[in-house]
Formats: sequence, structure tokens, C-alpha cells
Amino acid sequence: MEPAVWRHPKSIATVSLSGTLPEKLEAAAAAGFDGVEIFENDLLNFDGSPADVRRIAADLGLAIPLYQPFRDFEAMPAEFRARNMARAERKFDVMEELGAPMVLVCSNVQGIAIDDPARAADDLRAMAEAAAKRGLLVGFEALAWARHTRRWRQAWEIVRQADHPALGLILDSFHTLSLGDTLEGIAAVPAEKLFFVQLADAPRMSMDVLSWSRHHRNFPGQGDLAVTGFARAAIDAGYRGPLSLEIFNDEFRAAPARLTALDGLRSLIWLESEAGGPALPAAPDFGGVDFLEFAVDYVAGRELGERLRSLGFARAGRHRSKAVDLYRQGGVNIILNAEQDSAAAEHFQLHGPSVCALGLKVDDAQRAIARARALLCKEWRERIGPDERSIPAVRAPDGMLFYLIDEQDSGRSIYESDFLLDHCSTGCAGTGAGLTAIDHIAQALPPHRLDSFVLFYRTVFGLQAEALHEIADPYGLVKSRAMVSPGQNIRIPLNVSESSRTATGRFVTAYAGSGIHHIAFRTSDLSGTLTQIEPAEAAMLHVPDNYYDDVGARLGLDDALLERLRRQQLLYDRDAGGEFLHAYTEPFHDRFFFELVQRDGYLGFGAANASLRMAAQALASRSRPARPA
Amino acid sequence: MEPAVWRHPKSIATVSLSGTLPEKLEAAAAAGFDGVEIFENDLLNFDGSPADVRRIAADLGLAIPLYQPFRDFEAMPAEFRARNMARAERKFDVMEELGAPMVLVCSNVQGIAIDDPARAADDLRAMAEAAAKRGLLVGFEALAWARHTRRWRQAWEIVRQADHPALGLILDSFHTLSLGDTLEGIAAVPAEKLFFVQLADAPRMSMDVLSWSRHHRNFPGQGDLAVTGFARAAIDAGYRGPLSLEIFNDEFRAAPARLTALDGLRSLIWLESEAGGPALPAAPDFGGVDFLEFAVDYVAGRELGERLRSLGFARAGRHRSKAVDLYRQGGVNIILNAEQDSAAAEHFQLHGPSVCALGLKVDDAQRAIARARALLCKEWRERIGPDERSIPAVRAPDGMLFYLIDEQDSGRSIYESDFLLDHCSTGCAGTGAGLTAIDHIAQALPPHRLDSFVLFYRTVFGLQAEALHEIADPYGLVKSRAMVSPGQNIRIPLNVSESSRTATGRFVTAYAGSGIHHIAFRTSDLSGTLTQIEPAEAAMLHVPDNYYDDVGARLGLDDALLERLRRQQLLYDRDAGGEFLHAYTEPFHDRFFFELVQRDGYLGFGAANASLRMAAQALASRSRPARPA
Repeated sequence: MEPAVWRHPKSIATVSLSGTLPEKLEAAAAAGFDGVEIFENDLLNFDGSPADVRRIAADLGLAIPLYQPFRDFEAMPAEFRARNMARAERKFDVMEELGAPMVLVCSNVQGIAIDDPARAADDLRAMAEAAAKRGLLVGFEALAWARHTRRWRQAWEIVRQADHPALGLILDSFHTLSLGDTLEGIAAVPAEKLFFVQLADAPRMSMDVLSWSRHHRNFPGQGDLAVTGFARAAIDAGYRGPLSLEIFNDEFRAAPARLTALDGLRSLIWLESEAGGPALPAAPDFGGVDFLEFAVDYVAGRELGERLRSLGFARAGRHRSKAVDLYRQGGVNIILNAEQDSAAAEHFQLHGPSVCALGLKVDDAQRAIARARALLCKEWRERIGPDERSIPAVRAPDGMLFYLIDEQDSGRSIYESDFLLDHCSTGCAGTGAGLTAIDHIAQALPPHRLDSFVLFYRTVFGLQAEALHEIADPYGLVKSRAMVSPGQNIRIPLNVSESSRTATGRFVTAYAGSGIHHIAFRTSDLSGTLTQIEPAEAAMLHVPDNYYDDVGARLGLDDALLERLRRQQLLYDRDAGGEFLHAYTEPFHDRFFFELVQRDGYLGFGAANASLRMAAQALASRSRPARPA
Repeated sequence: MEPAVWRHPKSIATVSLSGTLPEKLEAAAAAGFDGVEIFENDLLNFDGSPADVRRIAADLGLAIPLYQPFRDFEAMPAEFRARNMARAERKFDVMEELGAPMVLVCSNVQGIAIDDPARAADDLRAMAEAAAKRGLLVGFEALAWARHTRRWRQAWEIVRQADHPALGLILDSFHTLSLGDTLEGIAAVPAEKLFFVQLADAPRMSMDVLSWSRHHRNFPGQGDLAVTGFARAAIDAGYRGPLSLEIFNDEFRAAPARLTALDGLRSLIWLESEAGGPALPAAPDFGGVDFLEFAVDYVAGRELGERLRSLGFARAGRHRSKAVDLYRQGGVNIILNAEQDSAAAEHFQLHGPSVCALGLKVDDAQRAIARARALLCKEWRERIGPDERSIPAVRAPDGMLFYLIDEQDSGRSIYESDFLLDHCSTGCAGTGAGLTAIDHIAQALPPHRLDSFVLFYRTVFGLQAEALHEIADPYGLVKSRAMVSPGQNIRIPLNVSESSRTATGRFVTAYAGSGIHHIAFRTSDLSGTLTQIEPAEAAMLHVPDNYYDDVGARLGLDDALLERLRRQQLLYDRDAGGEFLHAYTEPFHDRFFFELVQRDGYLGFGAANASLRMAAQALASRSRPARPA
């Protein structure tokens, strides 16, 4: 008996991955795919026979459910018919050798193709008949930019009319959703005629559908299309075949194939669950950021400790068994980890002083970990001493750790269990500068990694992707997309830049990859906070005077407010939610900087002033002597 | 008295260049611009007063003809009017301090803007009146995506209706041409009301006009818009003010500002001449490639000499005074230059064995050089010995030399004057493999340099840019755009790749920049040529067998032809012009490779088989042991 909820085989088209054909097969197998669609050009460029490909795939435990594409077959003028059938027979030879049972025929794009579904049905019936003689199948798919057959329902009409058991329909989410075509009726297609389902997402873009499809597809969960509803319609139709990814993406073509394949399988597992397949443990309900952990050595730890003190933090304790210090202020916990035998030490070795872990409060840490595991994340358990708490952690795609801390846990906090708290730990916090929480943290990524991190945060943690902002750094454009939890208490803007000369680009270069480069602390009274700190010690960023002339004129601010902003070097913005006051520090070792924010209902992240910040930081980072990491 | 042909001042908006405001000003001045438009955000981010900017510009000899933009002013609901006028007054303060006589007001994009030209005219008249009191001017420009005023004629109607001497029209080629708007009527706008002209080109793209404008503008001559006709219309109207570039381009934001500024001024000089301004010497009429010069040392020279011999070349002579060898076959001359005190030696030091110069046959070398000089190119004269010929050369943007050789020159050829020709030099060529000419040479470029080289070839040499091709390398996409002379005898495909792992990307990385990486020799009988050479010695590239199965099925080739292709490892393509047979070699030191082509009327460059070549070369380059350069 079949299980109540069917687990579909997971497949990926070789065109989705970078490399030679054997490298593509290896990457798909390593990620855990069940099968691959062989994209014709990958076979052509492979210096070996189709039987060799079959052997390699079998060795790797991969099925080959589909060979694709076969183009411009149906409804051609009569003189092309015989040649097209001969062409099909030669491809059937290849498929037999390859062990691929099905060929994907995509609808004709030729200008001379005839607009006659009956004729198309005749041609496809003939092809199916020839395929059936060899035990092969033909799947017909509507291309969104075909000459006549652009919508799935037209393709289905042709398949229905041809009425041959070896001919069925192939659905592709991109071709359907890019045209805004209806999903209605898909669930009514007989399951045995639904031969194959290809899935792809894409960001919404206003460009011609062919260019959009060829360059900008991405994995389900990375884009803006309603891929979940599409997959659900196919599943509702009773489809039991592979869920397969066919992604044409310029960046995927160049990226390491194993990383791409892992993201692909993660996206399919998530999608299947969202579309009514085997359920995943629910995404965590977040309670905010509990702590931020920096990897440091002795020297950087001292220096960063000083910087934190200058912002009103106090050293609140020392770890019971490790070279780890705790700094606190209001609800903010910052851990400086200089322990040699630790994940932090590895992180420091690769990246210098930098954020190596975040502690997130969740409703159920075990459930959160189980979800992450099901979505192919690596788990991490730090070595602990006696009586110390073991906190489960998830490794992000760049190796950063997300510790998941049970909010409901009624026992002692990790700070009480693991740290020797200083006598003044509660009192000292009261003498701080009024910082109360971590408002948001921004992560810089190499440009081609943005989609990968969007997928991680969206699927594993259930964060939502906000609209992309573009910010002009003096040395290039920076794109920023915030991932935000439904309760708004986890906010992670992701920043990328094609230029290595921008603030983001310099960080990615210096840091050797992605990382947290921007940490914003919240205060309810930024003016008050700034009177508590010494701007020079805290390395507060200088704001050019021209800014105040402009913001005053632009937003019509009254003279008193403008004078206060100018005197305290505050930046100002407002949106539908309310007002926003903020101030930045200079970067610490060109790696990260702090921001102090007062958010009076404001919803954004101060993007209006980010360009100014980048210009000022570019100057600040240039005028300071370079320091070794 | 004015000169008959007016030379317009040349200006550039600071947003077009990378860097801080002082860096932008410096780059504009270094290129030779007369003035800069100050883009507001550049001033805001500058940590100094507007008077400081005025001083720096004056020191650099730059005028500031325009301050821009002032947004969302006209036709707002009544309650915004007073605030908008206050905002204008504050900007006038800035302009006075800056010494900018004119502000650019772009048409309102706000949803609440009122659709009433009379109201817009009232508002702009009031603004012009306030400006006039300070001796300032207001220019009004239609934004292509504004709420109501999108076309230049609407903006002109409003200016005409406002009828104030301090108010005039600003034209921007992008806003007009992107909408396909008519130029008719521009020449009839009174010259004194045409306050300013901004020029930008762009590649044709099917996307929303706002994104297109913000990210993909480029310099006149780099894109597909009819900027020349636009400039001509403005000049015909009697406009004598600056021709100014306003370019929003993601790559320009990140590129070195001096390079961008030089390209910008080159584009304006060319455009002004094309649009009826001061004429440039005519572009050369090419007679084909005369020679190809490789920079080598003794070791690489020996090795490359062997490779050339394996392709049927013979050493035909030695330079009279330098360590330079001449190889010849048919009409192909190849120079291997190992001379220490030469441009080739500098080239070798930077790039290893590689093409350092091309000799091009032209109708008039002195005229060609004069044109190049007028378009800001550097000239080069190589040190010569007694009785040797001095050939003038132009340095390309990457330093490569283009020698220009007078075809009409009735004297001795450079080979006769400069080389001691071997006794067999004529006879030996007869024993070659039938190569008769250089068919085309392809150049690999870093991706952000493509526009720069398109501009160089288009303006200096008068080559035409063909359509962009995209080719899938196993490790990423390669884009290729051929520059072709009107007579088709100079063909230079330009290749770029965002991925550093593709054939093009590997070349750019290894070569430290751009360079010739692909040299195609022509033969009238490729089969015959291949029987004359030893495939292993010539390092001919192996073609996977699957290719022949596919090309046979795809193009319906007969079995005899297919068998011949397979046996001789030939590639095949055809187009409207005719058939094409070709074969590649493996790369020489991962730097360049040769191609042998038989072009029977065929018009293209074998792009259909380029993906296969890239896959095979990726494997070949991996399986050979790395050799030092």
C-alpha cells in the first residue's frame, strides 16, 4: 500500500549545474537527488558515449528519467516531416543507450510552424508510436515563447487529441507562471497523462519572457512566482513522478556545482512540504536575538571590548571553562570568544575578528533543529564543560552558527549556567548608554550567493524576503534585501555588490566571503544615548554638513530639530510607520560597524541615508592606516 | 565672428563617474572636459562646503554649468507649494555658493501631481522669477517615467506657456529616444530657450524604462539609440551650450573614473562630429590584417615557432637589427618579437607570450592616425634602425598596438625593408598547408571593459558592432560581440564573461586583462589543409563523437559528409550565406588558440560550435600539466 503522503523522487536538469557532465552528475548525487534530466548539450560536449553516461549515473545511484529538449518537431510544413521523424529516431537511439525512458518535446518556435492543433496532434501521435515501439515515452511541453502553443492547456489539448498511451503532458512552472496563466484545470488532468513536472522560480522582472527564462530562473523559494500553488496543482492531479528542477541561471552556470545542487534539493524538499507533500516540522517562532558572538584573539578581544565599553557596555562575566567574555547592556548580550579549541577559533583563523555566531530565541529549539536537519542543514554542538549548557546550533551556508535557545526553558539562562557573572553585572548594565536590544544585523555576501542565503533564511527559519533596495556607494552599487521574521523581531538585511570597491565589496574581499558587517543596537532615546558616550572613543562617523541642508529642505524639518540633528550628528528618516533617528560608527578593522537606532514606529532600515554612510566610511577607511587582521 | 562650425563645450554629470566628488572632478579634468554637472547626492556626501567644490573645480579648470536634479516641484497640490518654493530657495543658496548658474528641474513623478500644464507653467514661472532675482536659471526636463510630463514637447509647451526669460528647456537623449519619441520640432525650438542638452546612449533592452535608465545607460556610440540624430536636432536648433553626458551605469559606478572619463570625452567628440559639428578625419578604409605580432622570449619564441611550423608556416626571415622573426604562409605574416628594448618586451613582461600588435592595411595611415589622435588615442613610434621603416601605431585602451600600413605605398614592403628574408621565403610558403589569410581574431576582455572597446573600435576605426551572442561554457556564460569593418575584412569578436572559470574568464585572469586569445586562419580547403599537418603536433582539439550524431540529425547532413567530418574532426555550420567548416587547436599556454576555417559564403563565426570548443578546451587545459609562462 502506498503511504498516505507520497514522497516524490527529486530530480534536477543538468543545465542547472556548472561544469562538465560527470561533474554535474557527481554534484547531484552528492546533494542526494534521486535523478537527473540530461540536457542535450551536456551530452554533446561530453567526450564519451551515452552508455558511459548511463554507467556513471548508475554508479552514483542516479536515475535518468528524462532526456531534453527535442525542439521544433510538431506542425511543420510537410517537407520537414520525414526529416523530423528521422531526427527523432536518432535521438531515440541515444535515449536507449542512455537508459532515459522519456524525451521532452517543447512546442515549436519556428516562424513556419503551422497553427493547427490537429496537425500537431498527428505529428506527436506518430512520434509517440515510434517511441512506443522501443518502449520509450514522449512528453510535450508548452514553451512560453513558442510560435503557437504557449499555454499548458493548449499543449494538453494537443496531447488529449493525439490520444496515444506513449504521449503525455509535461508541465513547467516557469512557462505557466511567467505568462500569468491559470492553474485551474491542472488538477483535472488524468494522473497517467501527466508525464513530468519541472519546477523553477524567478524574480519578477519586466523583460521579455525568453531572456527572463534563459538567464534569471532560480530555485523555488528564491523568486517571486507562485511555485507552491503550481506544485500543489500537480500533486492534486495525482502526479507521482519526479519533482524536477530546470533552472537556467547565469550565476548557477558559474557557481560551484555542489553548493548549487544542495540549494536545489533544499528548495524541492521545502516546496513539496508547502505544496501538501510530506510535512516538515514547523518553522520556529522567534523571540528575538539573544546574543551575538564574536570570534577574537586576545588582542582583538581587548580592542573590541574597549569599543563596546565606549558604547555603554560593561563586561558582565567570564565563561566558567573557556577564554570567553560576556558584555552586556540592557537586553543585549555580546560574547567575545578567544577560546582556542572552538568553532570561534576556526572562524577567527579564516576571517579575523568577526561575528561567528548568533543566539536566537525560539519557541522550540528541538523542532527548529529537526526542521533544519530535514532541510539538509548541518548541526553543530560545541564542546562543553561540566554543568554547562549544550545549545544546539545550525550552520548557515557560510559556516556561521545560529544557536537556538528555548524561550520556554524555565531553568537558568546560559549566562547563569556557563558564566561567572561579575558582581556588578546587573547594576553595571544600568550605567550603560540606554541600548536595549539588537535592532537588526546586516550580512555582506558575494553577489552570486544572495539567492542561496535567501533560500536558507526563507526555508529553514521561515523569514520573509522584503523588496530589494539599491544604494549608491561612491565606488559602485550595493543591493540590499532584508529577511524579516513574521513577528518582526529578527531582521537581517543581506547586502551584495558586484564591485569589490564598495563598502560591501571591500568587506567580502577582506573577510574572504560572507559575514555580519553591520550591527544595529536599539535605544528609545538616541539623543540621550549619545550624551552618555564619547563620540571619539566610540568612533562615531562624521556626517557632512551638506546632509543637514538637504534633509531640512527635503523633508521640511523645523529649525530646532535640524539644529539638534546637526549638533549631535544624527541622521533622520521617516516612513508610513513613523520617525527614525540613527548614527553609525566607523568600521572596526574594516570588518563591521555598529549603528545606534531610535525607531519610533519606522519600518525600514534607514536606506535613505545608507549612501551617505558608505561615502563617509569610504573616506574613514582610507584615512586610517591599514591594520593587520 | 563665430566660427562656421561651433565647437560645443563638453561636460559630464558627476553621477557618471566613480568615486568621491573630488575624485570625479579630477578625472573629468584629466580627460579634458570643460565642465561638470554637479549631481546633488555627490555634493551631499562630500564633507566640505559648496564653496570648497567651486574652488576645487576652478583649480582644475572646470566650469559648473548645472546643478541637478531638483525633483517633484511643479503642479503639486496647493498645500505643498510654499514648502516647495522654500526648498527651491535653499537650493538656490547652494547654487550661489557653488557657482552653478542653472538648476535642472525634472518633471514630477508623484502620484498626487496634478495633470494641468497651466498649473505646472505657473509654478515654474514662480520658480524662475525667484531664480532670476539671484541671476540664476531654471531648466525643465521631461522624465520618461514622470506622472504627466514625459515627452520633450510637453515640457516645451509648459516652458513656452510660462514664458519667463530665466526658464528654458533641457533635453535628454535617453528620455526622448527610450520612448521612441519624435525629434521633429526640436530644431524649431528657439535657441535661447534650449538651455541645456544631456546625452546618453543605451543598449536596446525590453525592460521598464526606469530600470533601463538607472542601470544601463552608456556613452553615445556604445549603445543602440539614435543619439546622433538627437544631437543633430539640438545643434540644428542653434544650441551652443554644453554637450553633456549624464550616464547612470552600474559598471561605470565601479570602474576607474579616469578610464570612464576618457571614454566619455571620446564619445562626445565623435558624436559632435557625426552630428554636424567640427569634422574628424574620416575613418580608415581597411585592406585587411597585414601582420600579427607576438611578444615572446627566446623559449616561448622557439615553442611558438614550432607550433606555427606544425600549421604549415615557414620562418621567412630575421629582422635586420632586432631579435624578431618573421613566419609566413599564403598572405599571413606572423612576427615573433623577442627584442628586449621594445613595446613587445614590456608586453611580455606583463602578459607572457601573447599578441602585442596587429598590422592593419589602410588607405591612408596619416589620416587614420590624425583621427585617432583627435579621438584622444595615444600614438606610438617604435625605435627603428637605419633604413628601416617607421610605421605609425595607435595604442588601444589596453595598450595593444595597431600599426597602420599604407596600402597605396608603392615602395618596398616592411618585410623587404626591415627583414633579411630567407632564400626560401617565397618557395617555402608554397609548401605550407594552404592557409591564405587571417579570417578573424577574437579578444577577451574583463566584463566591464566591453563598452570601452566597442567605443574605441567604433569611433577610431569605424567598425560596426554586430549583435551580442551568448555561449555556454561549462563554467559560465560567455558573451560575444563582433566588431566588423564595412568591407568585412577586419573582424574582431569581443568576448566577456562574468565568471572567472570560463575559457574567457581564465584567459582574462591569467593574462592580467584583455588580449587576443583566438586567431582564425582562412583556407579554401580545410580538408586539404588538415592532410598537410600532423594533428598531434599542431595540437588540434579533439571533438567528442556525440557532436557528429547531433549535427547530422540536427542539420540533416548526408552520411558521406558526416563521415568526412568525423574522420577529420571537423566542425560544421551553415547560415544564409553558405557553409562553414572549421577546426580548433588546444590553447597555447592557456593564452591563445588557433582556428582553421573554410568560409564558403558563411557570414558568422561558428558560434553554434563555440560551446563545444569551450567544453573541450576546459578538459584539454585541465589534463595538461601547468607550464610556466
